[in-house]
Amino acid sequence: MEKKLEELKTRLAEIADLNATSALLGWDQQTYMPPGGAEGRGDQLATISSLSHTKFTSPEIGQLLEDLQPFAEGLDPDSNDARLIKVTKRDFAKLTKVPTSYVAELAKLTTAAHPAWEAAREENDYGKFQPYLEQIIVMRQRYAEFFAPYDHIYDPLLDDFEPGMKTTDVKEIFDTLRPQQVALVQGIAESEQVDDSFLHLHYDEDKQWAFGEEVITKYGFDWKRGRQDKSVHPFTTSFGIDDVRITTRIDPNFYNTALFGTLHEAGHGLYELGCDHALARSPLAGGSSLAVHESQSRMWENMVGRSLPFWEHFYPRLQGYFPRQLQDIDVMTFYKGINKVEPSLIRVEADEATYNLHIMLRLELEIGMMEGSLQAKDMPDAWNSLFQEYLGITPPNDKEGVLQDIHWSFGGIGYFSTYALGNLVSAQLWDVINQDIPNLDDQIRNGEFADLLAWLVDKIHRHGSKYEPQELVQRVTGSKIDPAPYVRYLTDKFSAIYDL
Amino acid sequence: MEKKLEELKTRLAEIADLNATSALLGWDQQTYMPPGGAEGRGDQLATISSLSHTKFTSPEIGQLLEDLQPFAEGLDPDSNDARLIKVTKRDFAKLTKVPTSYVAELAKLTTAAHPAWEAAREENDYGKFQPYLEQIIVMRQRYAEFFAPYDHIYDPLLDDFEPGMKTTDVKEIFDTLRPQQVALVQGIAESEQVDDSFLHLHYDEDKQWAFGEEVITKYGFDWKRGRQDKSVHPFTTSFGIDDVRITTRIDPNFYNTALFGTLHEAGHGLYELGCDHALARSPLAGGSSLAVHESQSRMWENMVGRSLPFWEHFYPRLQGYFPRQLQDIDVMTFYKGINKVEPSLIRVEADEATYNLHIMLRLELEIGMMEGSLQAKDMPDAWNSLFQEYLGITPPNDKEGVLQDIHWSFGGIGYFSTYALGNLVSAQLWDVINQDIPNLDDQIRNGEFADLLAWLVDKIHRHGSKYEPQELVQRVTGSKIDPAPYVRYLTDKFSAIYDL
Repeated sequence: MEKKLEELKTRLAEIADLNATSALLGWDQQTYMPPGGAEGRGDQLATISSLSHTKFTSPEIGQLLEDLQPFAEGLDPDSNDARLIKVTKRDFAKLTKVPTSYVAELAKLTTAAHPAWEAAREENDYGKFQPYLEQIIVMRQRYAEFFAPYDHIYDPLLDDFEPGMKTTDVKEIFDTLRPQQVALVQGIAESEQVDDSFLHLHYDEDKQWAFGEEVITKYGFDWKRGRQDKSVHPFTTSFGIDDVRITTRIDPNFYNTALFGTLHEAGHGLYELGCDHALARSPLAGGSSLAVHESQSRMWENMVGRSLPFWEHFYPRLQGYFPRQLQDIDVMTFYKGINKVEPSLIRVEADEATYNLHIMLRLELEIGMMEGSLQAKDMPDAWNSLFQEYLGITPPNDKEGVLQDIHWSFGGIGYFSTYALGNLVSAQLWDVINQDIPNLDDQIRNGEFADLLAWLVDKIHRHGSKYEPQELVQRVTGSKIDPAPYVRYLTDKFSAIYDL
Repeated sequence: MEKKLEELKTRLAEIADLNATSALLGWDQQTYMPPGGAEGRGDQLATISSLSHTKFTSPEIGQLLEDLQPFAEGLDPDSNDARLIKVTKRDFAKLTKVPTSYVAELAKLTTAAHPAWEAAREENDYGKFQPYLEQIIVMRQRYAEFFAPYDHIYDPLLDDFEPGMKTTDVKEIFDTLRPQQVALVQGIAESEQVDDSFLHLHYDEDKQWAFGEEVITKYGFDWKRGRQDKSVHPFTTSFGIDDVRITTRIDPNFYNTALFGTLHEAGHGLYELGCDHALARSPLAGGSSLAVHESQSRMWENMVGRSLPFWEHFYPRLQGYFPRQLQDIDVMTFYKGINKVEPSLIRVEADEATYNLHIMLRLELEIGMMEGSLQAKDMPDAWNSLFQEYLGITPPNDKEGVLQDIHWSFGGIGYFSTYALGNLVSAQLWDVINQDIPNLDDQIRNGEFADLLAWLVDKIHRHGSKYEPQELVQRVTGSKIDPAPYVRYLTDKFSAIYDL
């Protein structure tokens, strides 16, 4: 049996190498690749991902999993080997339900849909994207049918991003959350607005870059095992536990963009870097789910990076970088400025208090698409009317409305809710962390993050994807994903800032 | 038959994608990869190169080649399809002799050897690299045995870089060449030395970079289809005809290093960029051989970039970048300075007149390693004593001696002679080009390179690797590789500079 386990591991390691290679092809595409490389890169990505898919869904892997089942049942269920077999079995069962012809058809469709979406967004012309979205909806409905019977047609899609999570769970969580977030945002709207004009000045790009790297060095980001580059859309990727790449973008006329991009991606990066090396080159390396990943990025970006203790430590240093812009701004004014709440059009630029509302409207629209109650042609109107309902404003055009996100163009229906769930998880963890490290605020005020990172590595990072998200959250916090701590966190924070 | 040809092409395209992916893994390793990534990168390279090898040497490819043989015989022998079948057949015959396990083992070894060589060179500690070189020699001897019987154990290695070339051919060419180059260098040594002290001043790195890119933009390097980055050792690689990457390194205290590195690699890059798109994703994309490749890089670096007409055009511009260093230096003094002949330690910084002597000593050492008369432990002494014999100086340390080149760390024994052969080919081509473009000097004096590049694209670049090096040189110049034009070129050039 040990020999079969070794054979399984060898096959999975080869697949992990192919996936790491795909990740490098993607990283280069978004950082350094000259435009002429696009067509060839498409071929290379298609070749590598199809090889990876074929190898993972091979009858040999199926046979090994079947043969290893009795052996797995005799193992400690939390051991790496038991979890490896369990997670591989789960992924194998999912992937083998989807015919290769479907995968190729979807790849072909989304490869055409992506530039159509880019053009539609560029030219503010939804009609250019609509026929593709129409087909993508049909394709995703067909995808769900491979997993029938299901409780809800949206479940199989959600499960790809949040293993084990159900649509009714997410709906229930969001239904509890929404009225409370809406009430908070309304309360803020009726208060005096904070000033953030000093953030909208010219900030030298090299200095922005240097300060961001200074902060994440203190966070514990290991430059021997990672690096930061520039890209149009910030992202994190890894080619193994010891080679983790983050990116950011710099706006020379708005300070928040680069720094909080860097802190956010560093949170993802620290998660990847903290994985136990025993899980390397296996399906267990990398995070538990997108929501758990997002809990890490949002924690380092917001709970830490937009907190008062953080800026009590770093603000004099930042003023040293930018004396002209900041010498007359005291730390409290700065802190309030970077936390300004204001309903706005673009999700990725939204503040903490309104962010989840952007997600909730997307979830409703996606469920409508999948249930068949919303057609591609209805989307702009549906988007705008929900936007008005949730955020109190109506997008002036589709470019800043329904066309703003890349996700649907690559077929990623089911992805969005992970962002909001990540926020909730970050607050649940934050409560437990502050019980376990009672002087955490003081540590942050001294620029010390070692205890916090060690806690996260121990409770979350080192486990890779051994545990499904709900199981992991339960193990660490004692309850499943729960909106209450996040609402409490937001209310406390913004009551102080806006004197509610 | 057309269907079988299509199937062959589809399989070869998939292999080309794998090879492009390997090239990206290698490029990233030498440009941006953090040190922690080294181990994982070794696994990834081993996995991808072994997949590529397995797919290329598969019985299916063998069968297709066999089935297509009668069809190929009916084609125009110079057509793309006929050449594709011929070249694939040649490579298939070679590669099927090498077991997949050997390929993976070598990839893993050299991936570990590369950082060891870097550290050894950095710390001037040959002992750090010696155990890897020891294993690499054994691996390369094992490689040669796959091709037994051979005329010489070095032949199978040479053939990988110069298809069709034999060790005795190279030895014969070098035996003719060496006494003439030694005599020239001696004649120069007895003449009054030129001044190049102005090149050894501080030159701002960003300005060095900018001027280099300005020049190769005029050469016709297409930035939409390529880019330049920094690496310890300059190199060129490509991930397809439309994504070609060159690198250079900058010495802030010696002007020649970065510029001539950039011009050299741009020569390689232009060759890759000039390939006919009909050959994309096939074994015919890319250069005919390393020597032909080197003929292009040396031409753009030396025949063009170290010529007087070139500097009559560019020198005022360079003085604009570096007025403090160059305002009192006239163009003739500058021209003589960059062409200074002086036996020196580092191959890549050697002048044109001594360069081939660096190659000849490496060839002798490599032949010794392969024949077994030289062990890894003997290399520093053997290097130093041959260096004294050929160039009249002894390296003061291994960093500037036996450790200077990357090649052995990646197993590239057999590679070096291609550099000297490339010099010879560049002079043969240069003679023909100057017959075909009689006013070429005037064009260069005006900063015009379009006719030169068009000639090279037409005669050399577009053909990719359809023709073996000797065949291509014969087609274009009417004779095989011949040292006479290069000796004539060197003698003319340096007689004028040194007033011989």
